Amino acid sequence: MTVLIDGVPGEQVSALDRGLAYGDGVYRTLELVAGRPRLWRWQWQRLADDCVRLCLPLPDECLVLAELEQAAAGLERAVAKIVLTRGAGRRGYAMPADAVPTRIVSANAWAGYPTELAEQGVTVRLCELRLGLQPRLAGIKHLNRLENVLARSEWSDPAIHEGLLLDSEGYLVEGTMSNLFQLRGGELVTPLLDRSGVAGALRAWVFDNAPALGLVVREARLTLDDLDSAEAVFLCNSLIGLWPVVRLDGRTWQIPEILRALAARLAVAS
Amino acid sequence: MTVLIDGVPGEQVSALDRGLAYGDGVYRTLELVAGRPRLWRWQWQRLADDCVRLCLPLPDECLVLAELEQAAAGLERAVAKIVLTRGAGRRGYAMPADAVPTRIVSANAWAGYPTELAEQGVTVRLCELRLGLQPRLAGIKHLNRLENVLARSEWSDPAIHEGLLLDSEGYLVEGTMSNLFQLRGGELVTPLLDRSGVAGALRAWVFDNAPALGLVVREARLTLDDLDSAEAVFLCNSLIGLWPVVRLDGRTWQIPEILRALAARLAVAS
Repeated sequence: MTVLIDGVPGEQVSALDRGLAYGDGVYRTLELVAGRPRLWRWQWQRLADDCVRLCLPLPDECLVLAELEQAAAGLERAVAKIVLTRGAGRRGYAMPADAVPTRIVSANAWAGYPTELAEQGVTVRLCELRLGLQPRLAGIKHLNRLENVLARSEWSDPAIHEGLLLDSEGYLVEGTMSNLFQLRGGELVTPLLDRSGVAGALRAWVFDNAPALGLVVREARLTLDDLDSAEAVFLCNSLIGLWPVVRLDGRTWQIPEILRALAARLAVAS
Repeated sequence: MTVLIDGVPGEQVSALDRGLAYGDGVYRTLELVAGRPRLWRWQWQRLADDCVRLCLPLPDECLVLAELEQAAAGLERAVAKIVLTRGAGRRGYAMPADAVPTRIVSANAWAGYPTELAEQGVTVRLCELRLGLQPRLAGIKHLNRLENVLARSEWSDPAIHEGLLLDSEGYLVEGTMSNLFQLRGGELVTPLLDRSGVAGALRAWVFDNAPALGLVVREARLTLDDLDSAEAVFLCNSLIGLWPVVRLDGRTWQIPEILRALAARLAVAS
């Protein structure tokens, strides 16, 4: 793995960084092909939105693109991560007026998920952990991810590919590492992320691209009962792509042609 | 500041540490006098409890004590911090079976708060941010502290010494960096921390020591209305000690003699 810390090759950050002390930062995980990030428009927009939400300065876009290319040098296909923190700080929660943000760009060779999962669908479970409601942090891909860590620790069976998360009121939010959509009557519906959850870049891509296939996309509060009567369910993130869900406890779903068409569109998206 | 990373002097940690990636760890902040931590029994118990909650291995107690002493060498009075993370990990939320935890022990010269604040009382404000409810993380002093960071960013007026936090249901929880008690009729009442908040070491000390002064201590759901009719209100943490609250918006409180007696007991506690 190649890591650049503020543009300089290295693998270490200050032990006083607020990213470590408080999770005071944001990140994105993305796919690079020949050093160029896929779905960059959506990734960058989400990163920019998240920085505004947390009052973090956004670095220069061209600088980040150059660092991604440098980190992935020699790799035809790579997984990259961008972490932006508020930087090293004195003790205390107050945001230092003179904070110098830390920018960590890393990449390593692609070690994605088996393509059968996207083709044949995945088996998911329902997590016991319920996501708390915090509108001030909802949607942000920030570095406070203990809920996800605890939820992912609930199972180790490799036949279970993802866990679905409900919020404390029982509404569906997402998978532990993915966003969720259901298909019903020509509509794609995905949970509102105004109170919990992470709004992924691929989720945003679906919003912008499903209409071209004749699908209407909207956000709503969804329940497990809604999934029961859905024609199809899928999960998405920038590394897994689209995963049709075929099994959740006693429930099963098919993979309709329109989902394969959306996946085909994603396969050639840049 | 002196920093020991896993016992070795240094100031940097891996950029891949899960403490940075996910806030996957816990910490304590404490006072050292001549290299020895004050209120250690309560600090260590809370650290041990938190490690159990997050399935983190607890380091050897004597090792940590020796590192605190080493970090504070030459300092008569110091502020120290212990951070324990799940260590560097591969991508993904799952806790790695082979994770080697990271232990960061640091200390610097005491730069505490003016003693007038403890003697004359503090002015506090009510934060707009409401804490989310997450029983799985409630009480733990973990590294996911964005709620505190956002709450503390609400004011910069140095005449405001702390901000009080309500949860999403409107119950009082704590200060942004302190625990809260109210005094009424010989009883100290502090918010239940079963759904949000951080259970500080000094809060635990109060539970164990107030009875010797004839005070009953208990946890309850508290509201702002409860504070209105309280005889006194105070905040506490291991660095500020006990801060009587004398002003919150239009409300004012006195500093009764029993609070000064509790502070006097704390001043000689070890």
